[in-house]
Amino acid sequence: MAPIYDRVALIGLGLIASSMAHAMKAGGLAGEIVGYAKTEETRKVALEIGICDRVCTSAAEAVEGADLVVLAVPVGAMGELAEEIAPHLKPGATVTDVGSVKQAVIEAVSPHIPEGVAFVPGHPLAGTEYSGPRSGFATLFKNRWCLLTPCEKSTLEATARLRSLWEAMGSNVDEMDAPHHDLVLAVVSHTPHLIAYTMVGVADHLRRVSNSEVIKYSASGFRDFTRIAASDPTMWRDVFLTNKEATLDILGRFTEELFALQRAIRLGDGEHLHAYFTKTRAIRRGIIEAGQDTSAPDFGRAADVKAGD
Amino acid sequence: MAPIYDRVALIGLGLIASSMAHAMKAGGLAGEIVGYAKTEETRKVALEIGICDRVCTSAAEAVEGADLVVLAVPVGAMGELAEEIAPHLKPGATVTDVGSVKQAVIEAVSPHIPEGVAFVPGHPLAGTEYSGPRSGFATLFKNRWCLLTPCEKSTLEATARLRSLWEAMGSNVDEMDAPHHDLVLAVVSHTPHLIAYTMVGVADHLRRVSNSEVIKYSASGFRDFTRIAASDPTMWRDVFLTNKEATLDILGRFTEELFALQRAIRLGDGEHLHAYFTKTRAIRRGIIEAGQDTSAPDFGRAADVKAGD
Repeated sequence: MAPIYDRVALIGLGLIASSMAHAMKAGGLAGEIVGYAKTEETRKVALEIGICDRVCTSAAEAVEGADLVVLAVPVGAMGELAEEIAPHLKPGATVTDVGSVKQAVIEAVSPHIPEGVAFVPGHPLAGTEYSGPRSGFATLFKNRWCLLTPCEKSTLEATARLRSLWEAMGSNVDEMDAPHHDLVLAVVSHTPHLIAYTMVGVADHLRRVSNSEVIKYSASGFRDFTRIAASDPTMWRDVFLTNKEATLDILGRFTEELFALQRAIRLGDGEHLHAYFTKTRAIRRGIIEAGQDTSAPDFGRAADVKAGD
Repeated sequence: MAPIYDRVALIGLGLIASSMAHAMKAGGLAGEIVGYAKTEETRKVALEIGICDRVCTSAAEAVEGADLVVLAVPVGAMGELAEEIAPHLKPGATVTDVGSVKQAVIEAVSPHIPEGVAFVPGHPLAGTEYSGPRSGFATLFKNRWCLLTPCEKSTLEATARLRSLWEAMGSNVDEMDAPHHDLVLAVVSHTPHLIAYTMVGVADHLRRVSNSEVIKYSASGFRDFTRIAASDPTMWRDVFLTNKEATLDILGRFTEELFALQRAIRLGDGEHLHAYFTKTRAIRRGIIEAGQDTSAPDFGRAADVKAGD
């Protein structure tokens, strides 16, 4: 198969960019992969593990001659980066990003996109709790969704080509407008992360329960929260600062529901609790049926234990 | 190895009792396993899959002649069950339970325990999101903690013997007093479950985001909540009704912290958010180091994907 892009520039070399590089190399999807990262250490690692054919010491240099430029930095850094690279973009190039928030990125990046360059915002819904170039792997996007949110600077042709790249990396691709994206993500990702961070923080503060007890006895529920709460702090700070309205909206609804359940506990209203807990099971079944998770008990951790016998 | 108990009666044949039966059979830890479940269907399944040598149509009959009686029913049903079986308990027998709350169980069960019978409350910190006899497996307790909370009706000898059973089934065993148990569990299990149920409920209510979108895009955060929120509704209703005080205490702290983070988002206080998110990473590292979870990214789901290539 011919490469989809002759030259791809990855700006930022964390988990997502590194996984894209692995996937593009595995599928022969890019003629050449050029990388840039802020720290020398990351650039060295990128060459060492072979995710880039070449690394540059500035983003401006990295984007020169690139057919696809992927902005893979925290959302709060996108605007400044776009301004820096704008004069160096090749006519006919496509710029995309992988940020978790889309309206704020479009507002920050679009004004800098020159005539003759397309900007197609994107967001792969995939990740792990690890960060950095060494955490990437080729199958991260396989069977996961990638959402594209075309904007005024997008063209149909550039969008179609970017879609074919994501599909070739194993993703399912959907398109939607940026405000809807930000609301959906506030529900399925941003608010759950904030809640997980909060619960882990509460456990950490509580003096009557020691941290070692929290750690020892984490198996039943809390453990999943700690995984979520181990994600990259800078990325998540930027997510909440830039998807403020939708997150505050969903948080308000969450608190309302939580207070209703808290009241049911205080009043001993078992029927309310039972009905609520029964209803939530259906969503889980839907997720398993949609193939978005394993049906193995406890995420297949039990199998780990068996294998470790 | 000689059996630890000649005859064990399992009252209630759900995930925990079924896993105990598998583990006891695998290790030759019980001479005979007698079972009782409320529904005929469950009793039939128990015989069919071979977790019990014999099933009875009443709990009273099942406990006759048993050296160990395991109460494995929802916490709210323990008191009535204890009253029913009390006259049929063998002198010298030990009664234990596997309930997620300990003070309420001790208050409900202890008054019915006759002279010459020991009651040693217990709680294995293990489970999956599945319920029923078919969901059990022998390694569920392996490398997981089992907490014993001895009370006035416990004896040193009965406690030591029960501990040796749990250890033989693969558990690590700790002893603590019941009020402390209930507080620790409110932190590591009960409150996280309530929060997960709430978040899944919020997603379900939100009309601007369809359920199919929630299901499709669940991969980043929300998915873990839905697993937690798929657990048995009756069991969890009883947990919250019987561990009311500790749960409300932790919920109050949770709301306080959440409001502080919500305020930081509203005011754009990135430093507060970043500092909070950095701190919570340490707890995750502790859990991995303590061997309470896999360090595989995304719980090893990525490996699933690779295997499914």
